[in-house]
Amino acid sequence: MAGPPPDVAAARSAVRTVLGDLPPGARVLVACSGGADSLALAAATAFVAAREGWQAGAVVVDHKLAPGSGEVAARAAAQCRDLGLDPVLVRAVDVRGGPGGTGAGGPEAAARSARYDALAEAATAVGAAAVLLGHTLDDQAETVLLRLARGSGIRSLAAMAPVRGLLRRPFLGLRREQTEAVCRAAGLEPARDPGNAADGPWRAADGSALRRAAVRERALPALVAALGPGVVPALARTAEQLRRDGDLLDAQAGALLDGAVVAAAPLTLDAATLAAAHPALRSRALRTAALRAGAPPGALAAVHLDALEALVTGFHGQGAVQLPGGVEARRRCGRLALHPAGTPPGGGTE
Amino acid sequence: MAGPPPDVAAARSAVRTVLGDLPPGARVLVACSGGADSLALAAATAFVAAREGWQAGAVVVDHKLAPGSGEVAARAAAQCRDLGLDPVLVRAVDVRGGPGGTGAGGPEAAARSARYDALAEAATAVGAAAVLLGHTLDDQAETVLLRLARGSGIRSLAAMAPVRGLLRRPFLGLRREQTEAVCRAAGLEPARDPGNAADGPWRAADGSALRRAAVRERALPALVAALGPGVVPALARTAEQLRRDGDLLDAQAGALLDGAVVAAAPLTLDAATLAAAHPALRSRALRTAALRAGAPPGALAAVHLDALEALVTGFHGQGAVQLPGGVEARRRCGRLALHPAGTPPGGGTE
Repeated sequence: MAGPPPDVAAARSAVRTVLGDLPPGARVLVACSGGADSLALAAATAFVAAREGWQAGAVVVDHKLAPGSGEVAARAAAQCRDLGLDPVLVRAVDVRGGPGGTGAGGPEAAARSARYDALAEAATAVGAAAVLLGHTLDDQAETVLLRLARGSGIRSLAAMAPVRGLLRRPFLGLRREQTEAVCRAAGLEPARDPGNAADGPWRAADGSALRRAAVRERALPALVAALGPGVVPALARTAEQLRRDGDLLDAQAGALLDGAVVAAAPLTLDAATLAAAHPALRSRALRTAALRAGAPPGALAAVHLDALEALVTGFHGQGAVQLPGGVEARRRCGRLALHPAGTPPGGGTE
Repeated sequence: MAGPPPDVAAARSAVRTVLGDLPPGARVLVACSGGADSLALAAATAFVAAREGWQAGAVVVDHKLAPGSGEVAARAAAQCRDLGLDPVLVRAVDVRGGPGGTGAGGPEAAARSARYDALAEAATAVGAAAVLLGHTLDDQAETVLLRLARGSGIRSLAAMAPVRGLLRRPFLGLRREQTEAVCRAAGLEPARDPGNAADGPWRAADGSALRRAAVRERALPALVAALGPGVVPALARTAEQLRRDGDLLDAQAGALLDGAVVAAAPLTLDAATLAAAHPALRSRALRTAALRAGAPPGALAAVHLDALEALVTGFHGQGAVQLPGGVEARRRCGRLALHPAGTPPGGGTE
C-alpha cells in the first residue's frame, strides 16, 4: 500500500511531534484563516488527532477588516467541519477599537493582539490544551528579514518559537509550498489570505502589512535570485540561533537588573553595578528598566537607550533623559532613577 | 570663512576619532584600492594627519586578478602621493597560489587573506601603528545580509569592528555616497573597484564576488524599495548589536569549554558539563572544540554541529561523528573525545 504523498506525511509528522506530550483525550484547536498554511494544518491535525485520540477543533478569527471577511471566515469554518474538526468556533473581533484608533503598534499589531486574545478566549471556552498555528519556515524567514530591516536587535530578530504558552507551531520547518501541496492532496481550496497580500486590508492604514507583503513578494525573491534558494531556510536557521542566544542574554540581563535595583518605586538602579556589566547585558537591562518604569515598548527607540547608556557610562553631569510615555530618567548620587509620568523627580543632579 | 562640505567634515571627524589614541609622530597607512571609499579615506587621512602630527602613508594591494590591475594600482598610488601621503607602497600579491587553487573559502576569501597579509607586512615594514580601511556603513549592511543568508548565526553576522588589531575602519558610520561626495569635493576621480562589481574578476571562479555584487546591486535595493531607505543603517545597527552580543557569548562559551576539558590531546571533554550548559553556549563550545581538534572552519556545517550536539544531549550509543578535516568525535564513558586525522581513537563506545 502506498503511503501518503511526502508533503502530507511531513505535515502529519510535524503535528504529531509538536503535540507529542499531550495525553489521549486532550483537546486542541487549530487556528484557521482559510489560507493554505492553516488549512493544511487543519487537515493534518484532523488526521493525526483521530489516530492519537486527541479532540481536535478549530477556531476561525474574523478581523472584519476587509469587505467579505465574514464569508471568508464562514467558508474556512465549513472546510474545518468537513475535515471532521469539532467544535469549530468563529470569533469576530473588533480591531479598530475606540476613537484612539489602533495604537502605537499600528493596525497589524492591533489585529495580531486581537487575534491572540480571541484564540486564548476560545481555548479557555473549550478547555483546549493547545492552539495550533500554521506559520511556516517562509513566514519565519520573512519575519526575520522584516525585523532585521528595522534594526531592533536580537530580541526582535529571534524566531517564532515552536511552543510558547498555549500556542504551538508545528509547521515552522515546512515550506509554504508544502502546505499548498497538502491542500491539493486533500482536495482543499485555500483562500488567498487577505492579511498577507500586498493589497490587503491594512495597506491603506499604515503600510505594515504592505511591508510584510513587499518582503514576501519582492525583497525575499530578490535575495533568493541573488543568493539562491537556500536563503529562506538559512534565514529561519539564523532566527532559531538568535532565539536561543537571546533567551540566554535576556536571562542574564534580568539577573543584572535585579542585582542593580536599589529601590522599586521609583525604580532606582545602582549605576556602578550597571557600568561594570557587559554592554550586551547593560543595554538589555536598561531597556527592561525603561519598560518597567512605564515606557511603551513600541515607542522606545535606539536614541532613548543610547541616552540612558550615557547616563550610566558617559555621565558628565547631564540632565534628565526624557523617555516615551512621560518617563524621565535622571542620575543622582551614583544612582539612576526612572520616574513614571506624573511623579515629581525632585531637584538637582549628581 | 565657510567650513568644508558636511561630508568632508564627517569623513575627517571619523578619521580623527578612530585614531584619537595615537600620539603625534605615529605612522599610519591607508589601504587604498582607488575606489571611492578608500580614496576618500586617503584624502581625509592626509588632511587630518597633517594637523595632528601623524605620519600618514598608503598601501595599494594589486591582486593581479583582472587585466590592467597593475595600472589601477599605479593610478591609486599616484593619487595617494598627490594627496601628500608618504610613503606609498604597492604590494602585488599572488592570490591564485599553487596547483591547489584558492582553497575552501573560494577566491574571494583567498584574495582577502592575501590582502590582509600584505597589509600586515606593509605595516611592519614602515612601523605603522594602524592600517586604515575604507569600509562604509553600506559595506556593513551588505555583509550582514550576505552572511545572514548563509544561516551561519550570530558569529558570522556580527559587524566588522571599527578597531581590530592593526586594522581600523573609520568610515563604518558613513554612507558610500558620502565617500563619493568627499572624492568630488577633493577633485578625485575614483576607480570602479573591480572586486566589487558583478562583472568582477572572481565572477567566473566561484561566484562569491558575484553574490556580494548581487546583494549590493539587487537584493539590498529590493529591500530598500520594500521597506524604505532606513533598512541600510538598520542592518548596520543590528550587526553592531550582534557583534556585542557575540563577544559576550563567545567569552562565556570559552569559559565553558575550558571548564569541560579533561585532556588536551586528544581533546577530551566532560559531557555532563557540556550538557548542563545553556545550548547557546554549548553550541559555541562544541564548534570551538571541533576547530581546536583540526576541523577547518569553512567546512564545519550545521549538520556536523548537530551531530556533535547529539553526542552530548541525545546520546543513545551512537557511533563516532565524522567531522571535516578527518576529525572524529566519539563519546565514551561520559566523555567526548575529538581525534584529529590520523589519530587512532581506540575501540568501543560508552
